[in-house]
Amino acid sequence: MSAEVVSLSPKGHGDSPSLDPILSLTAQSMNAVNAVILERMESEIPLIPALAGHLISGGGKRMRPMLTLAGAELVGYQGDHHHKLAAAVEFLHTATLLHDDVVDGSETRRGKEAANIIYGNPATVLVGDFLFSRAFELMVDSGSLRALKVLSDASVIIAQGEVDQLTAQRKIETSEERYLNIIGAKTAALFAAASRISAVIAGCDAEQEKALDDYGRNLGIAFQLVDDAIDYDSERAEMGKDQGDDFREGKMTLPVILAYARGDADERRFWQDAIAGFSNNDDDLVHAVKLIGKHNTVEATRERARHFAERACDSLSIFPDSSARRAMVEAARFAVARFY
Amino acid sequence: MSAEVVSLSPKGHGDSPSLDPILSLTAQSMNAVNAVILERMESEIPLIPALAGHLISGGGKRMRPMLTLAGAELVGYQGDHHHKLAAAVEFLHTATLLHDDVVDGSETRRGKEAANIIYGNPATVLVGDFLFSRAFELMVDSGSLRALKVLSDASVIIAQGEVDQLTAQRKIETSEERYLNIIGAKTAALFAAASRISAVIAGCDAEQEKALDDYGRNLGIAFQLVDDAIDYDSERAEMGKDQGDDFREGKMTLPVILAYARGDADERRFWQDAIAGFSNNDDDLVHAVKLIGKHNTVEATRERARHFAERACDSLSIFPDSSARRAMVEAARFAVARFY
Repeated sequence: MSAEVVSLSPKGHGDSPSLDPILSLTAQSMNAVNAVILERMESEIPLIPALAGHLISGGGKRMRPMLTLAGAELVGYQGDHHHKLAAAVEFLHTATLLHDDVVDGSETRRGKEAANIIYGNPATVLVGDFLFSRAFELMVDSGSLRALKVLSDASVIIAQGEVDQLTAQRKIETSEERYLNIIGAKTAALFAAASRISAVIAGCDAEQEKALDDYGRNLGIAFQLVDDAIDYDSERAEMGKDQGDDFREGKMTLPVILAYARGDADERRFWQDAIAGFSNNDDDLVHAVKLIGKHNTVEATRERARHFAERACDSLSIFPDSSARRAMVEAARFAVARFY
Repeated sequence: MSAEVVSLSPKGHGDSPSLDPILSLTAQSMNAVNAVILERMESEIPLIPALAGHLISGGGKRMRPMLTLAGAELVGYQGDHHHKLAAAVEFLHTATLLHDDVVDGSETRRGKEAANIIYGNPATVLVGDFLFSRAFELMVDSGSLRALKVLSDASVIIAQGEVDQLTAQRKIETSEERYLNIIGAKTAALFAAASRISAVIAGCDAEQEKALDDYGRNLGIAFQLVDDAIDYDSERAEMGKDQGDDFREGKMTLPVILAYARGDADERRFWQDAIAGFSNNDDDLVHAVKLIGKHNTVEATRERARHFAERACDSLSIFPDSSARRAMVEAARFAVARFY
């Protein structure tokens, strides 16, 4: 079983921000994390590594554990507890993805058939629970009760965000503020915790812990905003990538929230029917992308994302200049420049 | 919101073992545990307490947290960390029940409509995740890294047991040994951990920890054996209780494993078809109960349960006689005498 990591590269070249510096910064410790991941997804029940491995070895970006590793470099952490904690972070994320795919009835994930389609919902729910449990086992092994507190609190917030998102689904009246609360919980809480725990295990002061938390949280919001923009981006369609999952599921993401707010009466009726699930076929998706283009809300969403990415960068300014800090700043700028 | 606890009483009276002593022993601390449970199932997302409360306030027996509380009495623990830990144990159990109901497509639970029927699978999966996360948050709050280790290890074993059970479903060739492994993981691991952590937080020696682990583990196996016997018990049918869930789901429980082993060629063909899901309607269930009665395998299963209950009782013999020990011994004997 391998655990190949797919690196992202931005669409353009030249001056575009790149993930390469953060990938180099964390390459060696990421190998150690991948070894922990592969070891701990094993089980004497063969279905577990088969199903977990389908997702874990299937090209994750390892964004979240990378934050723990980069943070450890930034603060000069000398131990090795961050390997297990970073693996725990990835397991928490993977468990959430498996359950998300069951909840959404997803058909694909990371360009492959989703686990729930291959193995069914029951196995996917239970293997998600296994990974969740393994995550906490790894945290306990790392021995830091304070890191455990940060991650278990985040885990509660993530679950609340997932339920909140479900509650907001097919609700056209969802506001930008509620949307930001949802992505702050379901996505950014884990980014924040992943980043913060590097300072926790290194014994940093409260200001540094907070700075790393802010970095992760703002980056997480930016990351999710871009994900949500991409799902309606006409450039993505040109690249032959699937899109429209959020549209079909009636998820109120920012491109839709803004297009609805900026739309005329006819457009608003269209969005009401579409989000309610009455008109969300492929032709409707084409119309939705057209309206979103008309009101420029993919670009508006990306603009919001850039705002949060810059806040992420600024939160690192309390740390002295270093290759780690430069890599983390560039990673944040990359996150909002990416197209897939 | 209340959190009423349904106490069990055995069918007979007089000399029958009773849960009353253990209920009295733990009544005061159980009130504290219930307060923690009610407080921690709250959330600003209204769907969470609604769904969680449907199950939690719906008449659980609180068997598992009761083990933690009784163990604390047995070893003379003086602190109050056991309240949060016992609540965490109940949350872990409740999360598992919610996910089980999704996995099995259950229609009822504890005599009421199951949460997945009322709220749907997506919400039920996600609220299960919330309770799971809350459980770990409570463990962290309790401050014992060793108790966290015991419970997170148990949580991994439970998840593996659940997946193993799924793998064995509809497999007529499942052996008694494999069945015991499955229930040892999916049920007894949490009973063992719930019991052991009382010794852990009280700072008991390894022998006492092991004794309380053994008590919980053997009691858990006995408890599950009786549950599985009851699902085919003709006396239960006379009481007007639903039965046959295991039969319809093709679960290989001990009454079936033994009836298949003891059956003639015709009977074996019936079981093969029934467990495979080809003949499992109500008439087939009547026939199954008849065959199980013919080979006395409900009674054989109960006999196995008595064996494990006696082992549970014996494991407590290293502790001096006390009202706590007597209550725990009687609870184990009650567990195998109950009819629902």
